[in-house]
Amino acid sequence: MYEARGYAAQSSSSPLEPFTFARRELRDNDLLIEVLYCGVCHSDLHTARGEWDGTVYENGTLFPAVPGHEIVGRVKAVGTDVSTMKVGDLVAVGTMVDSCRTCAHCQMGLEQFCEKGATWTYNAPDRISGENTFGGYSNLIVVRQEFALRVSHPEAQLAAVAPLLCAGITMWSPLRYWNAGPGKRVGIVGIGGLGHMGIKLAHALGAQVVAFTTSEEKRQDAFALGADEVVLSKSADEMKRQAASLDLIVNSVAVAHDLDPYLSLLSLNGTMALVGVPAQSHPSPSATNLIFGRRSLAGSLVGGIPETQELLDFSAKHGILADIETIPIDQIEAAFTRMQRSDVKYRFVIDMQSLRSPDKA
Amino acid sequence: MYEARGYAAQSSSSPLEPFTFARRELRDNDLLIEVLYCGVCHSDLHTARGEWDGTVYENGTLFPAVPGHEIVGRVKAVGTDVSTMKVGDLVAVGTMVDSCRTCAHCQMGLEQFCEKGATWTYNAPDRISGENTFGGYSNLIVVRQEFALRVSHPEAQLAAVAPLLCAGITMWSPLRYWNAGPGKRVGIVGIGGLGHMGIKLAHALGAQVVAFTTSEEKRQDAFALGADEVVLSKSADEMKRQAASLDLIVNSVAVAHDLDPYLSLLSLNGTMALVGVPAQSHPSPSATNLIFGRRSLAGSLVGGIPETQELLDFSAKHGILADIETIPIDQIEAAFTRMQRSDVKYRFVIDMQSLRSPDKA
Repeated sequence: MYEARGYAAQSSSSPLEPFTFARRELRDNDLLIEVLYCGVCHSDLHTARGEWDGTVYENGTLFPAVPGHEIVGRVKAVGTDVSTMKVGDLVAVGTMVDSCRTCAHCQMGLEQFCEKGATWTYNAPDRISGENTFGGYSNLIVVRQEFALRVSHPEAQLAAVAPLLCAGITMWSPLRYWNAGPGKRVGIVGIGGLGHMGIKLAHALGAQVVAFTTSEEKRQDAFALGADEVVLSKSADEMKRQAASLDLIVNSVAVAHDLDPYLSLLSLNGTMALVGVPAQSHPSPSATNLIFGRRSLAGSLVGGIPETQELLDFSAKHGILADIETIPIDQIEAAFTRMQRSDVKYRFVIDMQSLRSPDKA
Repeated sequence: MYEARGYAAQSSSSPLEPFTFARRELRDNDLLIEVLYCGVCHSDLHTARGEWDGTVYENGTLFPAVPGHEIVGRVKAVGTDVSTMKVGDLVAVGTMVDSCRTCAHCQMGLEQFCEKGATWTYNAPDRISGENTFGGYSNLIVVRQEFALRVSHPEAQLAAVAPLLCAGITMWSPLRYWNAGPGKRVGIVGIGGLGHMGIKLAHALGAQVVAFTTSEEKRQDAFALGADEVVLSKSADEMKRQAASLDLIVNSVAVAHDLDPYLSLLSLNGTMALVGVPAQSHPSPSATNLIFGRRSLAGSLVGGIPETQELLDFSAKHGILADIETIPIDQIEAAFTRMQRSDVKYRFVIDMQSLRSPDKA
């Protein structure tokens, strides 16, 4: 057992506070990882506040809850059967720490759809002990070796790598699955933690990128991120000019909104992939809009381990990183508040060094 | 000009009644067709009653309205540039009689998505004259040669071929586009004019077919049509047994209903294609249901000319025909009433001989 320090919510109404807990002894295939950076994801907040009870989480949030699934760290110890990683290696952990690894979906490298249920990095039962998993808002984490990704970036980039593990892969997976690339026009709806990665990645993949935002202020930012065109979604005129022109839209907005104006922008056989789970349902999309254009409204969920590794390698090769603001962990509640106001460009990342100094933890 | 006789609605509140009108002189690429049989489609009724005003039809139904777009007939005369058809040939006409034939979609053989707008067989402006088109509830029709399909069936089957031109192709196109075939599990929702063709076609394509019905009485019928399994959709138990097991669902139900119970039955990467336009929107589908399974909710619209010819050839080769009840044209209002009650197995087809005898017309 390893004594770990972190931040936890003790109930859905209490703020995150320092929390000391045990990480399990290493199993044969486990890695012990010293967490260096952890991104701050909307899911962390939804979980801490119990906002996904009954929707994403059948059994609700279990408290204490330690969030965090955008983790970059260094291997501190390895189990007896670990051969692919060694002490000192830089690694990353995303939304999963285990899965059955034998079902058809796991064999396809789509562990997030494991037929027996992926073991999520937090708020999920460990496959062996049944204990609740604790995430990356912590100095240490233990994960099965197959769920640790290799990181080949220089040290100075590590904080900006962390958001790739959820925000990045959540955009990368649909971009790759629906073939974003040269000759394709790809829409990215919402320019936040997810959307800003979507613009960068779609652009780097060679697609023509059209960014959609409700905020005039983000127009220049979107161009700077790599958008070829930026559309103010409140402007009927600007929307109309994109009619039936997009092969793919990845919609990162997790607040209920009218999907029809976007579905109308899809070309024949086009797909809009939703990647956010809204608390209330979106208004019902028009069947006519789908039928007259053979359009699809789809969903996409983070990404599998092989495609996450692909993203990390692509990121290192092309220098595609998240735009981040680094915070000490004792500022997490202030960061949550600012994130809810979209007052961050574009992702908070906790520097876990702040937890290590006893005067801060 | 050819004097044509048919049945028309003079307003959305008046029944279909005998109507005499002019068919245009043949243009160079036109065929004059003697209509032998015309299927009775729900679209005919929606159009006659003005039920698609503002949804499918931007400008509403134009009266008088002559419905009918499931047409089998014989070539009576040809324009000077017609080379592929000759007088006496058996031909079929579906939901379109013209399109631009030059846009990208037409070039792909998807004339129903013509970028300039397909010329629908009824209630659409002719591309050249702008006159309202009149459908197949009539003894004669004039169409551009490219929109007449070759029929190679024996004469005795012609009445049962007619419903292929809308009901059949509306199911065939999504089955083909989403690769129904051996090794695939395909759901067909609704066992009516469209659904019964869907079961037959999916079965003939080699897929494992699961039919969904609200009516216990249709269970044996569905097996007889070729279903491998039949699910009573009201039974939570029967539905549950199909969870996450279907690669494709073609949903033919045009009445607003909860889509989530069906979306839950799709396997990873599965698609449910809607082919019916409901008067009221379906309740909003759950984003979670799409995201956790990378599922798609799509739409599909009849089919293009090449795939309609493919269907007719497949039908002739495999003996796949509609199950029909033949009626004289003066029974059309009674047929509409029965169709609304689903009291037909499974498609009414008008024998146009009934119009030809002067005592009936």
